[in-house]
Amino acid sequence: MTDLDSPPHHASGLSHLDEQGRARMVDISAKTATSRTAVATGQVRLGERAFVAVRDQQIQKGDVLTVAQIAGVLGAKQASRLLPLCHDVLLQNVEIAFELNEAESAIDIRAITKTEGATGVEMEAMTAVSIAALTVYDMCKSVSKDIEIGSMRLLAKSGGRSGDYRRTN
Amino acid sequence: MTDLDSPPHHASGLSHLDEQGRARMVDISAKTATSRTAVATGQVRLGERAFVAVRDQQIQKGDVLTVAQIAGVLGAKQASRLLPLCHDVLLQNVEIAFELNEAESAIDIRAITKTEGATGVEMEAMTAVSIAALTVYDMCKSVSKDIEIGSMRLLAKSGGRSGDYRRTN
Amino acid sequence: MTDLDSPPHHASGLSHLDEQGRARMVDISAKTATSRTAVATGQVRLGERAFVAVRDQQIQKGDVLTVAQIAGVLGAKQASRLLPLCHDVLLQNVEIAFELNEAESAIDIRAITKTEGATGVEMEAMTAVSIAALTVYDMCKSVSKDIEIGSMRLLAKSGGRSGDYRRTN
Amino acid sequence: MTDLDSPPHHASGLSHLDEQGRARMVDISAKTATSRTAVATGQVRLGERAFVAVRDQQIQKGDVLTVAQIAGVLGAKQASRLLPLCHDVLLQNVEIAFELNEAESAIDIRAITKTEGATGVEMEAMTAVSIAALTVYDMCKSVSKDIEIGSMRLLAKSGGRSGDYRRTN
Amino acid sequence: MTDLDSPPHHASGLSHLDEQGRARMVDISAKTATSRTAVATGQVRLGERAFVAVRDQQIQKGDVLTVAQIAGVLGAKQASRLLPLCHDVLLQNVEIAFELNEAESAIDIRAITKTEGATGVEMEAMTAVSIAALTVYDMCKSVSKDIEIGSMRLLAKSGGRSGDYRRTN
Amino acid sequence: MTDLDSPPHHASGLSHLDEQGRARMVDISAKTATSRTAVATGQVRLGERAFVAVRDQQIQKGDVLTVAQIAGVLGAKQASRLLPLCHDVLLQNVEIAFELNEAESAIDIRAITKTEGATGVEMEAMTAVSIAALTVYDMCKSVSKDIEIGSMRLLAKSGGRSGDYRRTN
Repeated sequence: MTDLDSPPHHASGLSHLDEQGRARMVDISAKTATSRTAVATGQVRLGERAFVAVRDQQIQKGDVLTVAQIAGVLGAKQASRLLPLCHDVLLQNVEIAFELNEAESAIDIRAITKTEGATGVEMEAMTAVSIAALTVYDMCKSVSKDIEIGSMRLLAKSGGRSGDYRRTN
Repeated sequence: MTDLDSPPHHASGLSHLDEQGRARMVDISAKTATSRTAVATGQVRLGERAFVAVRDQQIQKGDVLTVAQIAGVLGAKQASRLLPLCHDVLLQNVEIAFELNEAESAIDIRAITKTEGATGVEMEAMTAVSIAALTVYDMCKSVSKDIEIGSMRLLAKSGGRSGDYRRTN
Repeated sequence: MTDLDSPPHHASGLSHLDEQGRARMVDISAKTATSRTAVATGQVRLGERAFVAVRDQQIQKGDVLTVAQIAGVLGAKQASRLLPLCHDVLLQNVEIAFELNEAESAIDIRAITKTEGATGVEMEAMTAVSIAALTVYDMCKSVSKDIEIGSMRLLAKSGGRSGDYRRTN
Repeated sequence: MTDLDSPPHHASGLSHLDEQGRARMVDISAKTATSRTAVATGQVRLGERAFVAVRDQQIQKGDVLTVAQIAGVLGAKQASRLLPLCHDVLLQNVEIAFELNEAESAIDIRAITKTEGATGVEMEAMTAVSIAALTVYDMCKSVSKDIEIGSMRLLAKSGGRSGDYRRTN
Repeated sequence: MTDLDSPPHHASGLSHLDEQGRARMVDISAKTATSRTAVATGQVRLGERAFVAVRDQQIQKGDVLTVAQIAGVLGAKQASRLLPLCHDVLLQNVEIAFELNEAESAIDIRAITKTEGATGVEMEAMTAVSIAALTVYDMCKSVSKDIEIGSMRLLAKSGGRSGDYRRTN
Repeated sequence: MTDLDSPPHHASGLSHLDEQGRARMVDISAKTATSRTAVATGQVRLGERAFVAVRDQQIQKGDVLTVAQIAGVLGAKQASRLLPLCHDVLLQNVEIAFELNEAESAIDIRAITKTEGATGVEMEAMTAVSIAALTVYDMCKSVSKDIEIGSMRLLAKSGGRSGDYRRTN
């Protein structure tokens, strides 16, 4: 059933439009399912006053890191609904951990995601970190408006055709 | 790639925070996929007036049990979005049935969920019953405010490492 | 523009179908916006072993009541997506509180919702309690399968044409 | 564990209700996973003025076809949340292509969906076309109110027990 | 605070990108809130065999029109999540009605939406019709694959600066 | 009706739990509706190779900035579903603009959100930037894994009791 499998942008009349740069998912139907893991990190720079309030659990809205953790886990499960070209996956695990970084008055966030499937879980880990960071921001914004979210990146990944990756810098 | 797989709360600096009791999903990557089924039940105690209205299809908002059934099926498919630590599953089936319980002026609800996967489907069955019950409540609340939802519990489950379960009381 | 406002089931040909009992929202376009509050309650009967584990924060998945609280708040904001005939509202507040009920080895849940609008917020309070209760269940189900969710009902409401209500029994 | 697997509507007391015509999903637990593909098409008839505006990228809200394409891809991933009895699937690919149909002042839309699973992906393809078409409508409605969406149908499908299908008319 | 209100694409460096045709919502902050209504219609052409099955409630999946109606109401409330540039509204009412069109072996669908707000509710009515039509399709596709959804259009709207509209053809 | 309005954590038995630091929304029922605007910024540092690919529209998945823009607009409308303690708002406008930052091989993102309401729209602007940034990352990750998202912060806000704010550093 060849012409079903040929991408529609090769059919006459459709090609030129799609060549103008519109969006497409990657077709993962030829990929094999393997165990896949991704680790992403990020940082919320709170400034000293908000940092102390988080550390000492003095934020009026509640225990910031617990709320952020739960929001991050829920966020990871929503990645394919939020990111247009991201595939649905069944996550086997999402873990989110925080480190109180006194030196920089910051919260360091790390998320690990796992699946068994034909596509990686980097975006789920990155989304978990992002939503956790936004939740920290939301809960601290009445204390300080100078909060900054940064250093969001992939730390490592395993599984898949492109092999393992570990950030070196 | 050992340290990717070690949980982040064992890494130095992160452990103490996570030991303070924050939330984590269960890592199901080592579990094997099996056929899994769950049956959950619940009851909406309507009082006589609202019960008669439901039974005789006199509720102004429409056929209560049909709307509740559809809401319950949709709710089951949303369980992992609603319950933070619940895993995504691909449900193979959701069935919701109602019994008009004249003796107690109540609607008895039963939901059955099925999947083939590494995690059970109890929460999907419980969520189906809950959302169906809330929908009954919503559609009858103009008739009576003394409606009560109760007796929501797991009746039986099959599949998975912990084996089959059937409620005895 | 009268016939736009006449319900479609009065138009010829459509009426008999709708009279067969299909679902409809209540048209709230003629209602006036007032301050509205609702209080709903519910109970998760855990059994002694799971109750002690929750009370002493020994549940492996994390701090049960905090996760349940956050899930309940998020659930309240989803009520109109979950319940087919429930109107969208902009909630001004959702509060969820828990009481450790030693006598019954149960968690008592109470949710308060507030809005300024043309429709009440009972369903948002009931949904908050339901999702919080399901989250408690989910986090404790590895300890006990005999958990039961019950006694979910409206305790009080204020605002709106039907006036204030307070449950008496 | 026979009675778990028997549908609840065969249990006494429940059967008559379900026989009244309430909704049920198809139980796919006995189906085998195969590669499945579906192609759906649809058309947005814009009228000359709106057609020219889309073609020449003069629509004030932006590049209509790109926005429609992304909305369609996201919509396909939401099909089981929107259609009550539609099963969750993990889509391996969604492709949406447009053809500028000068003769009819219309946009022709085609969506292809793929999965490996126990259920087909027709509804995902049909939903992709629908949401893409509604997005075109939304972006052009300030130019013309006489836009019409039509000709939405399945063009072909492959995989599954019922075999391949190709529309002949 | 003038430069906050100036659109970012007038700021240096950003303008040329946005002028390339990317997407933007219409800013409705200067519009006044009025009562708004929209009526949309559509048709599902089932073919004789599927039409008879729907009419006589012989579709195995359940009562087609009731399920479609509920899906349509829920869909209307999701319009702004599905259509990228559509504004959130608080719907005061959604009504969906069906007519069994024997002559064309079709289901005629009509949706009415209402709000009080600064933006119209055409897209909510169109989305309601679309999701209802897709649900009819989903429930009948095992009976026939030659089903076609068409004739989806705005019938009338009232409220807003552009005044009332009623389709004439 | 005083005790309805008193927070539940002042009721006996509930107070000590809530004082342990659980989460609560801010009650905005006493706030007045005003026009509110927020501007947030962020940066995706792509590295030279991925930057050139984005700039020259050579990314295989499509036109990165358009997809990111649409994802950001949709993300802004989801903020209260993603961030547990964030209030629902009806956004009047979301604008997202990009600047190609050649010097740093980065995409600079700016989002503006507007509403008329009792609560600010900072989190909607921050979420828009985050989801847009994650979308850029997702579309470029096959070109480079060393992409970093950073500098996400509030630039300015207007409206509300706390007055206008403009970041000075």
